[in-house]
Amino acid sequence: MSRIKPRLLKGFRDYMPANMLPKQRMLNQIAETFESYGFSPLQTPALEYSECLLGKYGDEGDKLLYRFRDNGDRDVSMRYDLTVPLARVIGMNGQLTKPFKRYQIAPVWRAEKPGRGRFREFMQCDIDIVGVADLMADAECLAVGCSVLEKLNVGDFVIRINNRKLLTAMLARFGIEEGAHALGVLRTIDKLPKIGEAKVRTLLTTENGLNTNAADGIFEFLALSPEAVSGWFEGDPIGESGAHELNEVLAMAAELGVSDRVEVDLSIARGLDYYTGTIYETFLKADESLGSVMSGGRYNGLLSMFGGAETPAVGISIGVDRLFYGLMELGIIEAKSSPSDLLVGVFSEAERALSYKVATMLRTAGINAEIYPGSPRMKKQLQYAHRQGIPYVVLVGKSEFERNEVIVKTMETGDQENISLDAIIDRFGGEKL
Amino acid sequence: MSRIKPRLLKGFRDYMPANMLPKQRMLNQIAETFESYGFSPLQTPALEYSECLLGKYGDEGDKLLYRFRDNGDRDVSMRYDLTVPLARVIGMNGQLTKPFKRYQIAPVWRAEKPGRGRFREFMQCDIDIVGVADLMADAECLAVGCSVLEKLNVGDFVIRINNRKLLTAMLARFGIEEGAHALGVLRTIDKLPKIGEAKVRTLLTTENGLNTNAADGIFEFLALSPEAVSGWFEGDPIGESGAHELNEVLAMAAELGVSDRVEVDLSIARGLDYYTGTIYETFLKADESLGSVMSGGRYNGLLSMFGGAETPAVGISIGVDRLFYGLMELGIIEAKSSPSDLLVGVFSEAERALSYKVATMLRTAGINAEIYPGSPRMKKQLQYAHRQGIPYVVLVGKSEFERNEVIVKTMETGDQENISLDAIIDRFGGEKL
Repeated sequence: MSRIKPRLLKGFRDYMPANMLPKQRMLNQIAETFESYGFSPLQTPALEYSECLLGKYGDEGDKLLYRFRDNGDRDVSMRYDLTVPLARVIGMNGQLTKPFKRYQIAPVWRAEKPGRGRFREFMQCDIDIVGVADLMADAECLAVGCSVLEKLNVGDFVIRINNRKLLTAMLARFGIEEGAHALGVLRTIDKLPKIGEAKVRTLLTTENGLNTNAADGIFEFLALSPEAVSGWFEGDPIGESGAHELNEVLAMAAELGVSDRVEVDLSIARGLDYYTGTIYETFLKADESLGSVMSGGRYNGLLSMFGGAETPAVGISIGVDRLFYGLMELGIIEAKSSPSDLLVGVFSEAERALSYKVATMLRTAGINAEIYPGSPRMKKQLQYAHRQGIPYVVLVGKSEFERNEVIVKTMETGDQENISLDAIIDRFGGEKL
Repeated sequence: MSRIKPRLLKGFRDYMPANMLPKQRMLNQIAETFESYGFSPLQTPALEYSECLLGKYGDEGDKLLYRFRDNGDRDVSMRYDLTVPLARVIGMNGQLTKPFKRYQIAPVWRAEKPGRGRFREFMQCDIDIVGVADLMADAECLAVGCSVLEKLNVGDFVIRINNRKLLTAMLARFGIEEGAHALGVLRTIDKLPKIGEAKVRTLLTTENGLNTNAADGIFEFLALSPEAVSGWFEGDPIGESGAHELNEVLAMAAELGVSDRVEVDLSIARGLDYYTGTIYETFLKADESLGSVMSGGRYNGLLSMFGGAETPAVGISIGVDRLFYGLMELGIIEAKSSPSDLLVGVFSEAERALSYKVATMLRTAGINAEIYPGSPRMKKQLQYAHRQGIPYVVLVGKSEFERNEVIVKTMETGDQENISLDAIIDRFGGEKL
């Protein structure tokens, strides 16, 4: 075996335990919340026939696929997102009970230019409700999103909502038809929070070729209060339908008790052209510059890309890598190398069996209890606990054990105290995250 | 967008919710058990430089890599197992605190001929203790393995253990040196439980070219009782060391309280040539024909494949796909489409807010409570609960709610009863798996 220098591909990364442990806990809490609303996990393969993925992400997306010929000369590609595989599953399984509520948390691969916070392998975390046109599904996504962020203790946040029909009707009023031109204008509007009104106005009249009248009209629209939207579109069926949908979803958000988390923002356009109704973006109040941590919307046409009748669907996607990064920066999530609540020390080979007994007892009570494999001097065991950030070390001596006691050493202070085996479980059993 | 027939690649599969839900729960229980012993999760990328993987799995393995040139013309391959990526991580991070105890549960890809139970994408689930030569680490793997299988309620099982040094010394006694010849003989011995003694004897004297004397000697060795092993190797340092290690690990298994799960089996050879000491295989008593569901051993040389000093390591790998399949067959794990403990019905739009309130309350109490998005007739909501296998439907009427009550319908029997909101939480709060 020749000596190869071990290295990572550009744009890829290892999640070492100190980061993976808190990230895994975050993902578990998200999945638990999804399940509490009745969403079930779906798992699709990392590899798909290229023809199933090509043409679904635009020319830009097609170029970013990890695409190759496999050993059987099949044209295959690595998963680029979780939505097209969902459409494939829907297309292949017509018999599925609807509403079909699934979640999927899985990596996707895109051969993008790597940059700050942009990786070629990253995790997507999606819920979708398939087969329901009713706006209750749109509202449920809001509620799930709120529950997830509350469970993760992210602090204050706001879900900004809009309706794609309002944008379509508004653009039509200024003679901008659906298609490339409309998309270009929407992408410019989307930049409003980042670059401000003046720069957006300039882009609209130069890059997007709008006249001043249209640009003024767009800003008039963007400044509307939620109550005024309906009136602004009076007599315009698409605009009125969008306003009605937006108000319905807001009313349901109130019934769901999440009104204070939801705000109408008519400038939210989302870059993707497949949304057909409600659209959402979510920002942490503590750091809006992080960008949206949870986005999505209703996309009624997309899932029939593999044929069949139009399947209504709505979903949200949590940007878990961005969210994790943000919560680490904000100190809400902390790096942690070890899942152990306690290290059980071993004094000597003769007393090892006692330590094993205590550790087993603690684990049975739901405490994560580790033993240093190899019983070196106690100093080295304590050093290991310190390095790993394990907060307590339990010392099990024969004489203490005979009195049904152990010694608990608090690593931070160095304090030691004798404590009964029952008391230790009462005291540390609830400490786990 | 042209109409593409949606299809899966051969050897790949979707895990639909009915299977993925119980599988995910199984994986969560495994991870929880690993963490209770202080193992931390590590995540490595799906893609690696091919040069980091090539030559590590033998010529056969190299051919099975999903290997291609990426958009930057780099020679890349999809992960084939979790051990070589671990070695890469160890090679790149010399500063890691030892013992380094990590687990990784992740898919790997092998372009094998697909067959019954053999897929091109499958999950590996490994723990390894890196940097510890002490046999306590070998014993800990036994304990972790027992805890996992007990937690999964697999029923009776046996971990068969052996020591590679015994096999090496035994083969040397009959003039069979380490290398291809020895590996061939070990592979033949490994077939003993499948094809029986007579056929193994024939293979040894034909395919492996041994004389009758050597074949007899091998069977004499295989028939030794654990107590007789040490004596059989008297004066042979490698054999004596193997016997000593085996006895030490057995003694620690007794201290760990798992003796009744562990059995010496001198015929276990494991196909892989990198094991250097303890080796394990695990069988469910209810279906030994399933093959080993948890295997591993000590491999002290392997992790230094990327340079550096020899790093001692020991680990086990749970065959989660095989185990899941086996437990489904045995009826220990059941397919389940929905995580919901309850469906909260909605009588009418006017009463929807009440249903939302009740559902939120139930979720807060840890109950998975789903609401049908779209409030159709109650009959359709009940039909959905039935199809999804949701065991109870909670009906929330205005008059009941004012009395702080709801109606609970048991789907299996059709029985309905009024129950207070507090009582429902007491009753169903503990029902979740």
